[in-house]
Amino acid sequence: MKSDNVVNFCSDNVTGASPEIIEALTQAASQGSAMPYGADPWTDRVEAKLKEIFETDLVAFPVATGTAANALALSVMTPPFGAVFCHPHSHINADECGAPEFYSGGAKLVTVDGERGKMDLKILDETIGQTGALGVHSVQPAVVTLTQASEAGTVYHLDEVGQIAEIAKRHGIGLHMDGARFGNAIASIGCAPADVTWRAGVEMLSFGATKNGAMAAEAVIIFNPDLAREFAFRRKRGGHLFSKSRFLSAQLEAYLADDLWLRNATHANNGATRLAEGLLKIDGVTLLHPVEANELFPIFPAGVSKAIQADGFAFYDEAAFQAPFVRLVTAFNTQDADIDAFIKSATRHVAATK
Amino acid sequence: MKSDNVVNFCSDNVTGASPEIIEALTQAASQGSAMPYGADPWTDRVEAKLKEIFETDLVAFPVATGTAANALALSVMTPPFGAVFCHPHSHINADECGAPEFYSGGAKLVTVDGERGKMDLKILDETIGQTGALGVHSVQPAVVTLTQASEAGTVYHLDEVGQIAEIAKRHGIGLHMDGARFGNAIASIGCAPADVTWRAGVEMLSFGATKNGAMAAEAVIIFNPDLAREFAFRRKRGGHLFSKSRFLSAQLEAYLADDLWLRNATHANNGATRLAEGLLKIDGVTLLHPVEANELFPIFPAGVSKAIQADGFAFYDEAAFQAPFVRLVTAFNTQDADIDAFIKSATRHVAATK
Amino acid sequence: MKSDNVVNFCSDNVTGASPEIIEALTQAASQGSAMPYGADPWTDRVEAKLKEIFETDLVAFPVATGTAANALALSVMTPPFGAVFCHPHSHINADECGAPEFYSGGAKLVTVDGERGKMDLKILDETIGQTGALGVHSVQPAVVTLTQASEAGTVYHLDEVGQIAEIAKRHGIGLHMDGARFGNAIASIGCAPADVTWRAGVEMLSFGATKNGAMAAEAVIIFNPDLAREFAFRRKRGGHLFSKSRFLSAQLEAYLADDLWLRNATHANNGATRLAEGLLKIDGVTLLHPVEANELFPIFPAGVSKAIQADGFAFYDEAAFQAPFVRLVTAFNTQDADIDAFIKSATRHVAATK
Amino acid sequence: MKSDNVVNFCSDNVTGASPEIIEALTQAASQGSAMPYGADPWTDRVEAKLKEIFETDLVAFPVATGTAANALALSVMTPPFGAVFCHPHSHINADECGAPEFYSGGAKLVTVDGERGKMDLKILDETIGQTGALGVHSVQPAVVTLTQASEAGTVYHLDEVGQIAEIAKRHGIGLHMDGARFGNAIASIGCAPADVTWRAGVEMLSFGATKNGAMAAEAVIIFNPDLAREFAFRRKRGGHLFSKSRFLSAQLEAYLADDLWLRNATHANNGATRLAEGLLKIDGVTLLHPVEANELFPIFPAGVSKAIQADGFAFYDEAAFQAPFVRLVTAFNTQDADIDAFIKSATRHVAATK
Repeated sequence: MKSDNVVNFCSDNVTGASPEIIEALTQAASQGSAMPYGADPWTDRVEAKLKEIFETDLVAFPVATGTAANALALSVMTPPFGAVFCHPHSHINADECGAPEFYSGGAKLVTVDGERGKMDLKILDETIGQTGALGVHSVQPAVVTLTQASEAGTVYHLDEVGQIAEIAKRHGIGLHMDGARFGNAIASIGCAPADVTWRAGVEMLSFGATKNGAMAAEAVIIFNPDLAREFAFRRKRGGHLFSKSRFLSAQLEAYLADDLWLRNATHANNGATRLAEGLLKIDGVTLLHPVEANELFPIFPAGVSKAIQADGFAFYDEAAFQAPFVRLVTAFNTQDADIDAFIKSATRHVAATK
Repeated sequence: MKSDNVVNFCSDNVTGASPEIIEALTQAASQGSAMPYGADPWTDRVEAKLKEIFETDLVAFPVATGTAANALALSVMTPPFGAVFCHPHSHINADECGAPEFYSGGAKLVTVDGERGKMDLKILDETIGQTGALGVHSVQPAVVTLTQASEAGTVYHLDEVGQIAEIAKRHGIGLHMDGARFGNAIASIGCAPADVTWRAGVEMLSFGATKNGAMAAEAVIIFNPDLAREFAFRRKRGGHLFSKSRFLSAQLEAYLADDLWLRNATHANNGATRLAEGLLKIDGVTLLHPVEANELFPIFPAGVSKAIQADGFAFYDEAAFQAPFVRLVTAFNTQDADIDAFIKSATRHVAATK
Repeated sequence: MKSDNVVNFCSDNVTGASPEIIEALTQAASQGSAMPYGADPWTDRVEAKLKEIFETDLVAFPVATGTAANALALSVMTPPFGAVFCHPHSHINADECGAPEFYSGGAKLVTVDGERGKMDLKILDETIGQTGALGVHSVQPAVVTLTQASEAGTVYHLDEVGQIAEIAKRHGIGLHMDGARFGNAIASIGCAPADVTWRAGVEMLSFGATKNGAMAAEAVIIFNPDLAREFAFRRKRGGHLFSKSRFLSAQLEAYLADDLWLRNATHANNGATRLAEGLLKIDGVTLLHPVEANELFPIFPAGVSKAIQADGFAFYDEAAFQAPFVRLVTAFNTQDADIDAFIKSATRHVAATK
Repeated sequence: MKSDNVVNFCSDNVTGASPEIIEALTQAASQGSAMPYGADPWTDRVEAKLKEIFETDLVAFPVATGTAANALALSVMTPPFGAVFCHPHSHINADECGAPEFYSGGAKLVTVDGERGKMDLKILDETIGQTGALGVHSVQPAVVTLTQASEAGTVYHLDEVGQIAEIAKRHGIGLHMDGARFGNAIASIGCAPADVTWRAGVEMLSFGATKNGAMAAEAVIIFNPDLAREFAFRRKRGGHLFSKSRFLSAQLEAYLADDLWLRNATHANNGATRLAEGLLKIDGVTLLHPVEANELFPIFPAGVSKAIQADGFAFYDEAAFQAPFVRLVTAFNTQDADIDAFIKSATRHVAATK
């Protein structure tokens, strides 16, 4: 797919980076020597800032990719013979080429289906209950992981996170949150970050920044300090401890400063809402899921998506999903003019099908 | 170890980044959308440039850390029951927390000692010959890896690489080069990059940039194209495929442009030479190894290293090594004035011991 | 579950061993010295006999458990980033605590549902086609494994194996057969062992003996000789190469001699048929699956299974499966009198429910 | 190496099995149904008997090979980023094709040299102290494993085990004993099994039977009950849980009954002593190590070993070790007449060299 001269709604990872983050990197690059491998003041400041934002003590480990964040986090929450419960469409199950299996030494991802990209609570409870029932013949329930915001552009609401945490606790297993789009979720729910994480029972959070304005930076946030020591060794062993860690932490510092992360996410969410409202005004267009974050899944009449693409808009279409919907993702830097142009193009091409 | 207000000779990874590289990142950040996961023009251009520099077809995979580069490269060159031959002081053996074992599924590092941080050719030949002699009871010889420049600040000269390649070939096993300081080695040897790699028999090269001016960027260069397909999956699975790959490739593009990599390395090497020459003029100071790249290992009279540190110079001393030498590393941005100040400090404190 | 004074239909692994096999072990134990680790004449003779039975060249590796046979076989047919296609009820997916994931370094089992314990051909074809579609983001199709006879007591008929092999071949992936009950399948189909294995496209077969009269012995049979070398190392590395290999091979030699394996399996299958016919004569009793090997899954009126158990019959009941059926397994040494007693008990208790 | 018509001193695993053990298997085979996977009375009785022998509570897991016993035991005592300290000649380091690395997920074996096949206490202490010194960059000390009796035919005496345990404890790491020849060690030392294991600080013991009269049976004995739960899952996952477990346990039951294990070991040790005494009477023959168990390493004049082999004696000679000694191993069933014939042959051929 060409990316030149097109408006690209393929993903929030087709974007560049926020100017504030580039500025922070430029500053960090010129500030002389700093001890490597995380023993630098940027990393200290990021952890302190996260403690403030999450209103609790925690340990934070910067890494560069969401796959690393998730796979490393899960590897300290499950034994090799453990079961990790996740939605079938979750990134760890569908898009990471087996990274969690690799990092955990072969744990099993057990999928829990549910509408709107979210695990169904009843199915989750039953599935955990059944897994491990055969004793040593079965992998053993170890951890539930939920994606916030989900791959369907929806969010787990406060009560849903609480109910999932209650299920996990009742079964005596851990709770992890894949927050590659955590900013979008918080901007959507409007709650304190603490409310939807540790206060609800989340022990580890993959706190994403890359999709929301950073170059390549995520933080694994550990609310359960018992898990921190092992994480440090696994990160190094996975090749995810940066020598010049200041350059990961400088990104995160700028991302957290002055609520940039929430401002960026709010911008992206607003773009998705604007796009959704415009498209829903078109007779014959529907949406697969409610729009609660920065992704939407319109269903167009046949032929429309190709016509819109021909107008210069890039996005994953029906062929990519082998299904009758397309996906549009807005980002921290999406322009209203581009959204409006998309709506105009869609309006025109849908009208032409009648 | 504090890094403020000190001149830091601890490592070349205590540095920031070259202005050219930061400028490239800034440019890349503002250039609109680009398809993720390496399907961007920066990545294409880096591979093309590397083909030009190495005068051959090749496949290049950017990653962010040297540990990732080495562990991933080795994982496609050895089966889980393979033996990897390396110097005991090599980074993969001493400093990566078992990353090669992790990525390979449990291959065994078999160490081959030798002076000046380089594997002894005779010991290498014998060790390969003995390993695997017990058939299924033994791990099987799979790959030799040499570090260029070595952890002792020395380089494998052209004939040495050729001889190692001949030994590897005779035993029917592969050859990998850890080039975390490849630029320093080329600047030292003065040969074409091709001569010391694929023309000599090297199949995969971890081509380092981080220590020599980049923020966090290395390229795994694969000269044997049969190994490339598997590498792609292992990189993703390890969490080392960046979504916004442009930001790795932009660093590498700037690093390779206008010979920045060689200019930076030459600067660092010259700094080490200047430092060595100054120290050797001091009666009572010797060097553990010849200085062929950007590291030197002075042996000071007792008490001197502490006194120099007290003057504001940071470096790993006798206590860190549990041995009677210290380590000084120069970098792409080391200032002659700082070098001269170090020599002056050393001169003064050595004199005081008499 | 107590095993004293009961007739035990729980599984064919609750049995002792065939007298011929014990006799062979006794003989082997007293025959002086033999070189260890498979370099003994018993092992040679077993491989020769298997070549005769399968009418082809092959390599055979004795191991002691079916889990070892399956996990080792699959580990040489899939890379760590591969997908293994199997029925959800297959032993590797449901009963081996993640052994295939462990041995393969984290490959993913992708389940393919289907009636009667057998993979549906259309779903198989589609699932393989969809897996791996995301390039490096997905695990890659590597191998199909089918269980012969299946966990539902059914068999894949010759044309079904051929069709599965055709699908695997078209997708360019391997084909493995879990033959923990291979004897029962051959006794049921009545074909040449070659027809349902290598002639149909099977590359590796876990050839079971334990459930059918041996103490603890299986043979991994490799029809594709390219896979044999790696297998040998993986077997040793997994701790599955016996020093006194004669004791595995002596079991297999006796098992193969004079068609003991087929005689035992025929006896077990006949027992299941007799049991099924007797139960189907009872008004109110049905079977979940057709009976094609040595397992049957009766559906009794409520309360009947507990009453039968109280009469001294052991079997896994509705509670064990959390479903309205029970499982009965016959074996090489099941007595007709015990079968008839079971039928009588069932007849009486079903009548009492009316 | 041919094994027909020769007297075989290659190893104690070239032997058949003790009649008592075969008798027990024959009995076990004919005793009707028994629940599988260790839920049988034989397994219960073995654990009870081991508690009696070791005078303590413990958990015992039967497995079939020494490699499985060691690799599984170590895998619950070390994290994947751990260091396992062992003698370079230890079976886990030299003869198991990387099984401990495989089972542990890539832990590193760090060798500790020492004379007579035993780790030097000072080197052990220093090596543990140095390993892990680099924090996350190093694998972390996890467990010491000592082989009792050693591969050199020597034993760790009570005070030596105690000192090693003290070193392990001081460094906060675990202690494992590879007792593939534990019987020979106890017969040699003459102490209570408890004294040289848990009372001295050993947490897990690979208790061997195969080399000393069993067909294929070892018990992993866990004195630290915290480690038992995980072991059960790892055993199953490794394919080492036998369905018909009675056949492993029946071997062990017979092995432990009436001190068969000690009688067999005493016989083997006495054979080695008789052989050593005979050989030492020959002028020109020396022994590499003192003979404390059932192995000896004679040094013959050049040409003698080949001449002895030509007389019909099998053993690993200088060529096998690439060193000027040979190895002779006696077993539970070695005949005095064969020993005397060997001495006679050696005497004659040594004389002929003068």
